[in-house]
Formats: sequence, C-alpha cells, structure tokens
Amino acid sequence: MKRIDWNALDEQERSEALARPAQSRAAALREGVSGIIAAVRARGDAALRELSAKYDGCALNALDVAEDEFAAAEASLDPVLKTAIREAAARIEAFHRAAAPQPVSVDTAPGVRVERILRPITRVGLYVPAGSAPLPSTALMLGVPARIAGCREVVLCSPARSDGRCDPAVLYAARLTGVHKVFKLGGAQAIAAMAYGTASVPKCDKLFGPGNAWVTEAKLQVSSEPDGAAIDMPAGPSEVLVIADVAANPAFVAADLLSQAEHGPDSQVILLSDSVALLDRVEREVARQCAELPRAEIARLALAQSRLIKVASLPQAVEVSNRYAPEHLIVQVVAPRVLLDGIESAGSVFLGAWTPESVGDYCSGSNHVLPTYGYARSYSGVSVASYQKQITVQELSAGGLRGIGPCTATLAAAEQLEAHRRAVTLRLAELESMT
Amino acid sequence: MKRIDWNALDEQERSEALARPAQSRAAALREGVSGIIAAVRARGDAALRELSAKYDGCALNALDVAEDEFAAAEASLDPVLKTAIREAAARIEAFHRAAAPQPVSVDTAPGVRVERILRPITRVGLYVPAGSAPLPSTALMLGVPARIAGCREVVLCSPARSDGRCDPAVLYAARLTGVHKVFKLGGAQAIAAMAYGTASVPKCDKLFGPGNAWVTEAKLQVSSEPDGAAIDMPAGPSEVLVIADVAANPAFVAADLLSQAEHGPDSQVILLSDSVALLDRVEREVARQCAELPRAEIARLALAQSRLIKVASLPQAVEVSNRYAPEHLIVQVVAPRVLLDGIESAGSVFLGAWTPESVGDYCSGSNHVLPTYGYARSYSGVSVASYQKQITVQELSAGGLRGIGPCTATLAAAEQLEAHRRAVTLRLAELESMT
Ligand SMILES: [Zn+2]
Ligand SMILES: [Zn+2]
Repeated sequence: MKRIDWNALDEQERSEALARPAQSRAAALREGVSGIIAAVRARGDAALRELSAKYDGCALNALDVAEDEFAAAEASLDPVLKTAIREAAARIEAFHRAAAPQPVSVDTAPGVRVERILRPITRVGLYVPAGSAPLPSTALMLGVPARIAGCREVVLCSPARSDGRCDPAVLYAARLTGVHKVFKLGGAQAIAAMAYGTASVPKCDKLFGPGNAWVTEAKLQVSSEPDGAAIDMPAGPSEVLVIADVAANPAFVAADLLSQAEHGPDSQVILLSDSVALLDRVEREVARQCAELPRAEIARLALAQSRLIKVASLPQAVEVSNRYAPEHLIVQVVAPRVLLDGIESAGSVFLGAWTPESVGDYCSGSNHVLPTYGYARSYSGVSVASYQKQITVQELSAGGLRGIGPCTATLAAAEQLEAHRRAVTLRLAELESMT
Repeated sequence: MKRIDWNALDEQERSEALARPAQSRAAALREGVSGIIAAVRARGDAALRELSAKYDGCALNALDVAEDEFAAAEASLDPVLKTAIREAAARIEAFHRAAAPQPVSVDTAPGVRVERILRPITRVGLYVPAGSAPLPSTALMLGVPARIAGCREVVLCSPARSDGRCDPAVLYAARLTGVHKVFKLGGAQAIAAMAYGTASVPKCDKLFGPGNAWVTEAKLQVSSEPDGAAIDMPAGPSEVLVIADVAANPAFVAADLLSQAEHGPDSQVILLSDSVALLDRVEREVARQCAELPRAEIARLALAQSRLIKVASLPQAVEVSNRYAPEHLIVQVVAPRVLLDGIESAGSVFLGAWTPESVGDYCSGSNHVLPTYGYARSYSGVSVASYQKQITVQELSAGGLRGIGPCTATLAAAEQLEAHRRAVTLRLAELESMT
C-alpha cells in the first residue's frame, strides 16, 4: 500500500494521488462490441446462440429460463440463504418505497394548476453479471425498485453456467422481485438483445446493472443511438474511500478495505486519516487479515494500487473525498455525522464503526448499484426514480389563462414566435367575446 | 397535412405513420464535432476565438460577458418584457421548488437508519441557443432549477450576435436566476469548453439545454467519455401531439399545431381525433391561420410532414399517443382528466381548452426542456433533481448490526466474498467480547 502525505504534495501530485486507472475505450473493445451488437440486430436469436456458445461455453436451446428450472432452483437452495434473500428484499423494498418520488400538484397562479405525475418506464432490462461468483444481491437491487415503480415488463439477463443453467440464487431472487422473464444471456450480446429486441427477447426502453468492460461499452453504445435504449449510468471499477481517525478500530477499517479489494484487481481502495498511528495500525492489520482470505491474490493486486493518505484534519479528509467522489465512503470517526454536512459527492455513505460497507452491498436497504469512477460527481445510484418518468401536467381555467396569458404573449413576442403568441391571444379574444 | 385512418393501417403502416424523421449521426457531423472538441481541448481559448469567428462571425476578445454589458442589457430592455421575465421566473421557481426531491430517513430495522440526502452538482453548464431568435425563456428554464438545487458554479453559454454582444433578454434572464458567468460561445465549441474547461471557461460536471444537431452531437460525445461531462438528456426536433374530440374549438387546436410548426421545418405535428368533422375543421383553420404568420414558410414545411389521424375512440388516441411518446401532449376533449390516467409517455401534458402549449413554454411553471424524439419513453424533463445527486447514507448501531449482520454474512458467503463476510463477523465477535 502506498503511503502519501497529502500536504506534502503539489496540485499535480494531488491529482495523481487520486487518479483512477485509465478507462480507455480501446478501439478493439469498441469494435468488438459494435460487431456483437450488429450481429444481434441482424440475426437475432441465432446470433445470441452462437455468441453464448463462444463466450459462455454453453449450447442454449431455449434462451429463457423455463418454469421447471425456477422450481428446481428454489428446491435446491439452502433455506437459510432463501430467508436471507427474502429478508434483504424486504429491507430494500422498505427503503426504496420510502424514497420513491411522490406526485406533486401546485397552483402557481389562480386557475393555473401544475402537476408532476409519475409513470413507470414500460419495459426495462436488468443485467446481473456472473463472473467469478453469482450475484443474487444484484438481482434484488435491480428487481425491487422495478417492481415498486410498476414497470409493465421486467426482463433480466444473466449468463448461464457451462451446464446451461443459471445460478439458482439469482433465479430465486429474480422471481421473488417479480421479474417477468429471465434470459440466459451475458456480455455485450445480452445488452444488444435487450436494447434492440429479438424474437425471444423483448426490446427494452432502459437497461440497468453492472458488468465488465464489454457490458459497459455495449451499454454506452446502445444508449447513444436513438433506436437503442437508455441506461442507468456509466460504470467503472468499484471503489471505496475510508475516512478514519485515531479512535477507529484498525481491524474494522482493514476489513472494510479488504472487502473492497477482494472485488477485483482493479478495485480502488483509499484510506484517509489525520493520524499516522492509525495508518500504521491499519497497514499491519490489512497484511494480517489479507493472508487469511481465499481471494488474497486478487486483494493483494488491488492493495498494491491502494493509497493510505495522511491529511491534516478531518475536514481536509472530506475535501479530498469530495475531490475523489468515491462510490462508497466509509466514515469511521468519533462523530461521523459532523462530517456528513460537508460531503458533496459519493455514491453511498457508511457512518460509524458498526456500519461496514457489506451491509449496504446486501441488506441495509440502500441500493448497491452506484456511480463509480468519479461519476458520483454528477450521477446518483439506482432508485425507484430510475425506473420512472416524471411527467409535468398543466391545466388552466379560463381565469387562469386570463391571468398568465399576457405574460406568455409578451415572452412569445420577444422570442419572435408569433404562432405561440396567437395561441394565447386568440383564446383571450374568445373569452372576451364570451362575456 | 397528411390524413390517416389509424384503423385502416396494418402494423407496419402504423409504425410508418408515427415515424420521426431519421436522426442519423452522420459521419460528417460526428467527425466535424470531434474535430472541434479536439481543437478546444488542445488549444483552449485560442480555439474558441477562432471557432467563434468562423461560425458566429464575431471577433471576441474577452469570452465572458462583462459587468457593463449586463448593465447595458438591463437598461435597454422594455420594462414590460422585464416584468414578464420576472413573473415567469417566479412561477417556474414555485413549481420547481414544490417538485424538488426531499431528504428521506427511515429505519429499515431496529438500529438501522437509512437516509437519502441531496447534494447539488457542484459545477453545471447551461446552453441557450440563439438560432433564429433569442431564447430568454430557456435561460430561465435552465437557471431557475440550478439555483434551487444550490449548484456552486453555474455558467451559461450562448452565441454572440455578429456585433459581439449577447441578446439582452437572455442576459437579463441569466442574471435574474443567479447564473454566475455567461460566455459568448455557441455550437459544439461551447459544449467542448464547458465539458473540458479552458483558461476562461470552468470545467463543468453536467451540461444542460437544447441545441442544434452540432450541439446535440457534441453533448453526446462529451457524455460518453469518462473525463467529459454528464448531460441532461439526448435531443431531437421538437414535437406536439394533440388529442381532440368533436367538441374541441378548431381554431384553438389549429393555433396549437401552428405554434409547434413554427419552431422549425423539422418540427413534428400530429393531431388525433375520433371525429372526422373535427379533423376537417382543424385542417381549414390551419390553412387560414398559417397564411397570417410571419414564419408561414417554416410552418408550411413542418405541416407538410404533419399527420391528422382518425382514431376509433379517445382511449385509442391515448394508446397511439403512448406509442409515439410525444414531447408535448395537448388534450382538448370534454373531460381531459379522464384520459390522464392512461397516459404513459409524454414530456409535458396540457389539459383542456384554456391550456395552450405556449403557457408551458413560458410561464405556467413547468419546465420546457423536455425529452423529444421518443425519449419520453425513458427520460423526464429537466427539474431540480437533474441538478442534484441523491446520496444514500446508512448508520447502524451495535444492535442494528447484531440484527442484520447474520443476513449480510449469509449473502456474502453465497457470493463467495469472504472479506465482505468477515467485515461483519469480526465486528459481531468484537461485540460478543464486549458483553
Ligand atoms: Zn462490496
Ligand atoms: Zn413551443
């Protein structure tokens, strides 16, 4: 782990200290992905079968999961795991319902009612990666808000294992959240199928979920074409930033850093402290705990890129954190709430010693699909609002138009939009003639 | 205007009847824009001056509007127009404040507090096109929600006229909403400057506003690069769909269709009615009113592409409208609210005879920066939320972790993330040892 003294750095060195690994949209990746998208658009299900054989090593007949596979999945799962999935879903639902947008109605002038109504995005596509391990939690994080929003058609793609089956826990979680259909598809081909539709896969209006570089590039490409699909957010490698003071438990801090590091070798891990003693203790603890992990090799690669940064004060730590805009921000200091006001950019924040990042990944109730790679400066995590359109509605009475019509006409005239002006004045004249 | 009987069409013909003009991201446009972006990134202000001379025909010294130009703008404006701008701003502010997201705090389990806090996007860039006429209303629509959100730095770009000055009404509106700095820049170069920053123009986190094909393409390009900027939404030509029944006033309907048609030759205008008599009357009224318009030539071009569609019933009209997903939806029927429940996709809805689209463009209080080109299927118009990040926060007490820790550990184990599991079990063990 790299030790850095923030106040010994000049501006350029500070930028380098917080730099993320370059995310070049390499030409080979762009072209590979656009080739896959073109193949799926041209040849639909046939292309999906070929690509699944090539990339996931499985020969698919039906692309979707049949009823008996869902039943077998449910029967095969450990009851303890099923209970945990249901428990997590219930808390995710509780928070997401509480945070869901509400309709609004306000009279901005007498007789001028302006409303904001909410409508689900009709068809949404969820992507749950498989990678090194199944991710039932991601199925919950994507499926629960889709159900709360009331999306009419919710489809989920997740790559099949080489035996041609999907992970049972993912299927159980998907079914629990009311996902309508699960397809055994992964990678750029899954994104292409949901964005453009095939005989089997319905065309979706918006796509959600994390994924590897191919999935991310495919989402970017389909979202930049008018006949493609919208996406939840751009994505990069996962990351955590921890702010800890001298009173923090170094074992807890080390465990949190390691739980980020085990995500992958490109995971970003940063610790900020105003205490050199704490930095020393955490470094020792990380070495000790890391040795015991099954994913120690992955974690070590991530840790080699990680940074322990000495800052002058906790407010300075917040300043550095805002500059980095972490996906996960853990605050393990004596009075974490005092720092909250100053936090400007982060995906999700974890306050205090008893709030490891793991709880947010699984079951505190917040969403774990969060902006990475500095996107927390301008994007938010997935929520019910991500699955909805907010439509404004206005209704004027005759008196309402009498009131705001002249203002409208003046502005339309200033913008030289005569037909806009007349749409008002013609109505006002009609009202005049009626009285 | 093209007459269509919806129920005489097959599926393919229905798709064609609602087709929008092709929005190809032509290679020439893509390359032209990426050349401009590269020039601005490489040579900053010098490139901006060259490009402004070339495209806007003005030689700029300072790129930003100086204090004396603001003062001169205010002094030169008709007091009636200033009053109308202030009146519109007040109603836009009233609605946007009422519809702004609120913080949320909920205990999802005993000792498990989960919150959603709101933070402004730090630096935002607004784009106000000039085109055929100045658009002070767009400055209001972009500037008011930025101020409500509390963005720390709000910059606005609008092309200078050939005399090197910006439109006084745009300057007055910008200043009124608290925009911090106005730059005399237009086109793709303005977008590049705000996305990447130059010596004069600050780098912005997110860009907002309508624009021509160059601006739209530039927004798309900068938003797909990690070091670029987020954008409000993709954009296409403006459009209106009107649903009218036999009781509708044909002069009103015609005026609303024309106020869309005058926006530009690529404007989309669609009228749906269950009454052939109404369609006939509106067609005659359109011809009559159009002849009197200063922009009659533009409107005629748009009307040539427009469609008058006979449907079987008003519910079928809503169905067709949802399929089209119009930016503006005007409902001029006897009981417009009855149809509102069925409306799924639209940018903004106008109910009843006394609610012309013009009021939403200017001063009912709703936003006029809306999703066009079918994007209303998945995007919403600009609102305060567009200028904010929603950050989730969780804080567990020791008891809270005791409660949800086991669920977390079970799920982490199922996903083979051992460090995630240990971040919980290590804390639970510590709690155990404390008692
Ligand atoms: Zn994690
Ligand atoms: Zn308009």
